[in-house]
Amino acid sequence: MLAMETIQYNLPQSRIPQAWYNIQADLPQPLAPPLHPGTLKPLGPEDLAPLFPMSLILQEVSTEREIEIPAEVRQIYAQWRPAPLMRARRLEKALDTPAHIYYKYEGVSPAGSHKLNTAVAQAYYNKVDGTKRLSTETGAGQWGSALAMASAFFGLECKVYMVRVSYDQKPYRRALIEAFGATVTASPSQETESGRAILAEHPESRGSLGIAISEAVEVAAKDPQTKYALGSVLNHVLLHQTVIGLEAMEQMAMAGDEPDVIVGCTGGGSNFAGLAMPYIGQKLKGKSKARVVAVEPSACPSLTKGRFTYDFGDTAHLTPLVKMHTLGSTFVPPGIHAGGLRYHGMAPLVSHVLDLGLAEAVTVQQLDAFAAGIQFARAEGIVPAPESNHAVAAAIRQALEAKAEGKARTVLFNLSGHGHFDMQSYLDYQAGKLENYEYPEEEIAMALAGLPSLG
Amino acid sequence: MLAMETIQYNLPQSRIPQAWYNIQADLPQPLAPPLHPGTLKPLGPEDLAPLFPMSLILQEVSTEREIEIPAEVRQIYAQWRPAPLMRARRLEKALDTPAHIYYKYEGVSPAGSHKLNTAVAQAYYNKVDGTKRLSTETGAGQWGSALAMASAFFGLECKVYMVRVSYDQKPYRRALIEAFGATVTASPSQETESGRAILAEHPESRGSLGIAISEAVEVAAKDPQTKYALGSVLNHVLLHQTVIGLEAMEQMAMAGDEPDVIVGCTGGGSNFAGLAMPYIGQKLKGKSKARVVAVEPSACPSLTKGRFTYDFGDTAHLTPLVKMHTLGSTFVPPGIHAGGLRYHGMAPLVSHVLDLGLAEAVTVQQLDAFAAGIQFARAEGIVPAPESNHAVAAAIRQALEAKAEGKARTVLFNLSGHGHFDMQSYLDYQAGKLENYEYPEEEIAMALAGLPSLG
Repeated sequence: MLAMETIQYNLPQSRIPQAWYNIQADLPQPLAPPLHPGTLKPLGPEDLAPLFPMSLILQEVSTEREIEIPAEVRQIYAQWRPAPLMRARRLEKALDTPAHIYYKYEGVSPAGSHKLNTAVAQAYYNKVDGTKRLSTETGAGQWGSALAMASAFFGLECKVYMVRVSYDQKPYRRALIEAFGATVTASPSQETESGRAILAEHPESRGSLGIAISEAVEVAAKDPQTKYALGSVLNHVLLHQTVIGLEAMEQMAMAGDEPDVIVGCTGGGSNFAGLAMPYIGQKLKGKSKARVVAVEPSACPSLTKGRFTYDFGDTAHLTPLVKMHTLGSTFVPPGIHAGGLRYHGMAPLVSHVLDLGLAEAVTVQQLDAFAAGIQFARAEGIVPAPESNHAVAAAIRQALEAKAEGKARTVLFNLSGHGHFDMQSYLDYQAGKLENYEYPEEEIAMALAGLPSLG
Repeated sequence: MLAMETIQYNLPQSRIPQAWYNIQADLPQPLAPPLHPGTLKPLGPEDLAPLFPMSLILQEVSTEREIEIPAEVRQIYAQWRPAPLMRARRLEKALDTPAHIYYKYEGVSPAGSHKLNTAVAQAYYNKVDGTKRLSTETGAGQWGSALAMASAFFGLECKVYMVRVSYDQKPYRRALIEAFGATVTASPSQETESGRAILAEHPESRGSLGIAISEAVEVAAKDPQTKYALGSVLNHVLLHQTVIGLEAMEQMAMAGDEPDVIVGCTGGGSNFAGLAMPYIGQKLKGKSKARVVAVEPSACPSLTKGRFTYDFGDTAHLTPLVKMHTLGSTFVPPGIHAGGLRYHGMAPLVSHVLDLGLAEAVTVQQLDAFAAGIQFARAEGIVPAPESNHAVAAAIRQALEAKAEGKARTVLFNLSGHGHFDMQSYLDYQAGKLENYEYPEEEIAMALAGLPSLG
C-alpha cells in the first residue's frame, strides 16, 4: 500500500484555545481613541453602554494580552473548533509549484464562516449581562445567520435587518436565519424612524448596509433590553477571531512547517485579523518573519487607496469616528459579488498594523477571484465564498511567484467560509456575466474630499 | 474555569479505515442473485461489463470480509475523513432526556453528504480501468455533485442527467455540479433515444429519476469509453459507505459508550447501510446488541409496506431484477421534499438484513421530519438535509421513549448531509405550505399487482 501524504492537521477538542490574544498588549504604539460623533472628543465606556454590554466595551479598550474565553463559549466552539488546518496538496500539484500551501478552513462552522467565532462570544456576554434581544444588520447574510444561531444557543431573541436587495435576492440565506428562530426584516422598513424616513423619500429603496445599521442601532438605543451586535471592524470582534491564528500556529507546528506568507481577505478586517494578529504578535517578539498580506477587492481598495484618518463607520454618521483606512463614508462600492468586502473603511486595528509596517495590502479583481475559486474547488473540493476567493487568488499568486523563482515558500491563508449560499454568483461567473471594476478614482476622491475635518 | 463537556470525538487522518467491511462475508444466508432483464436468468459479471469497470463488478459479488481501500481513495477521504462523531448534548438538554444522543456527521464532506464516499471510490476504479467519462443521473443533486467532484479529482469527464424539475427548481445545485467542471443536461433531453422518445410523446415532461437513469445508461452502453455510476442501492455502493460505521465504532469507544439503537434514513439504503452494516456484523458475532432502525418516509414506505420480491430497479425496466423490498417499479412516490428517499425499491442488502430480522423499519411523516430538523438546528447549529431529518426525527423519538421510561438509552444516528441546498423546503415548511402524505395504499396495490411474475 502506498503511504498517504498528510493533508489534515486536526487538534482535539481539548486544544481549543483557553484565551483570545489581544494585540493591543503588544503594539509599539497604541491605537488612536474613537471619538464621539457629536463632541468629537474621545469616547468613554459609558457612551457605548446603550448599545453594548459592559464586558464587551471593556474588551474593546483592554490592553491585557490574554483574555480568557469563557467555558460556555469554548463549549459551543467545540461544535466545530479547533477548525481544520489543511495542506492543499492537490492545488500545489495543479500549480506545479514548489510552494507549500496551507489553509485554515473556517467554513466548517455550522454557520459556514468565521463569523460564528464572535457571534457566540457576543451572545454569551449579552446573556450574562441580562440582554433579552440582539439587533443587527446583515448584507450578504453570513453575519446574520451566525448571530441568529448564537442567539438560539443562548435563548436570546434576535432581530436582523437585512438589506432589501439581499432579502429579495437571497431567500435561502433568510431561510437559514429564520430556521434558527430569528426575525428577519427587509431594510429599510416601517419599523423604525430611520427606515420610515428613507421610505418616505425613496419608497422603492433597495437599502444599504448603512441604512440597516441605522435601523438596528435605533432599535437597540430605544430599548434597554435590546443590544446591538456588529460582525466586524471593532476591536472586540477581531479579538474573538484570534482563535483562528492561535490554533493555526499549533497546527503548523504539527505540520513541521513555518509560514513565510500569511494571507487573508479584508472587508471589515475580522477574518484577516483572526489569522494574522497572533502571528504579528510573534513578529513583534522576533519569533516570526512571516510577511502578512491583506487582500482587498480592486473595487473597494480601502487599504491600498484609502486615507488613514478619522472617519465615521456608517454613511448616516451616527457611529463614533475611528482612525482607519477609509475611502470616505459616503463612498458606495461597486456591486461586486463579495458583499462582505464592500465596506468603505477598515478595522482600526488592521489599519494600525498596516500603518506600522507590520502588514501589507494587495488587490484582486473580481474575475481573478472567481477564477481562483473555481481552480480551488476543482483541486480541493471546496467552493469558497466570493469573499474568500480573494484570499485564494492571492495565495495562488504567491505560489506562482515561488514557482517562477524556483524557490520554496510556505503560504498560509484563511479560507473564511464556503460559498453554498452564493451559488448565484458562480452561475453568473460561469455564464460570463461578471466583470472587473476599475478603481473608481473620481468617486473615491469625492468621498475623501468629504471626510470630516477635526479642526 | 468550568470543565468542558466532551461533544466531539475526532480521529486523526491516520485512522481512516484501511478496508471497507463487506457484510456478504458474514450473512447467515447469501443474497439472492440479480436476474437478467431479458432472460430472467442469474446475471454473470460480463453482463454488467458495458456499464461498470470489472473491479466494481467483482466487489458487487465479493464475499471477502475486508476489501482494501486503495491509498489514492484514502488520500482523498483525508479531505474530510474521519468524519466527526458528535454528542448532541444541547439537544439532549432541550429534550430533557436521560438518553445519550450521538450523530455521525457526513455533511462535512465537501460535497455536503455521504455520497462522496462512494463517488471517490467509483471514480478511482473507473480511472484505473481506463474509463474516460462517467455518466449518471441525479434528482435532488447530492449524488450529481459528489460524482462531479470525484471526477474532477481524477481527471474524468462527467455527464449528469438531472431530472428536469430539479434542474429548473434547483439552479444552485446545478451551479455546484458545473463548478466542478461536469456537464449537466436537463432530462428528458434530445441527446438520447430514450430522451427523444419521451419528448416526442410528452414535450412538456418534467422528467423522473427513471427517465434520467435510462438516458445515463444509454450513453454509457453506447460508448466504450463511458461508464455508468449509481449513487445507492448496489452492493458495491453500500460497501464504500461502511467507512461511516467503522469510524463510528472507534469513536464510540473513545466516548466510552455503546449504542443501544442505531438509526439511519433509507431511500436507496446507502447511508443507513454505511453506518449499520459494521454494527450488524458485530451483532452476528454476538458482540453488539444494538437495535438497528431504518427510517423511511410515510409517503414511500418500501420497507414497511412493500413486498420482498424480485423487481426492476427502474420504471422503464432496463435494469436487472433484484430481490428487494419494493412498492412496485411503476409506483411514483408523492412529491415530498426529501427527494433522495423517493425510490420505489430498497437496496437488496438492506432488504435482506431486514428480512433476516437483523434490522427493523419505521416511518416518519414529512411535517414531523421538518419539525425535528428545526429543533435539531436550533440546538446543534446544523440544518440537516430533508432526507436526514427523518433520521433526526426517529432519534428524537427514541430519546423521548427513554425519557418516558425514565431509563438511559444510547442512540447513534447518521446525519447524512446538510440542507444548504434545500432551503426552499425549509421556507415552504416555515410558511406552512408542506403537508403530510397518507400512505398511498391504492397506488401501491396497483403497482404491486404489476410486479413481474417469475413463473
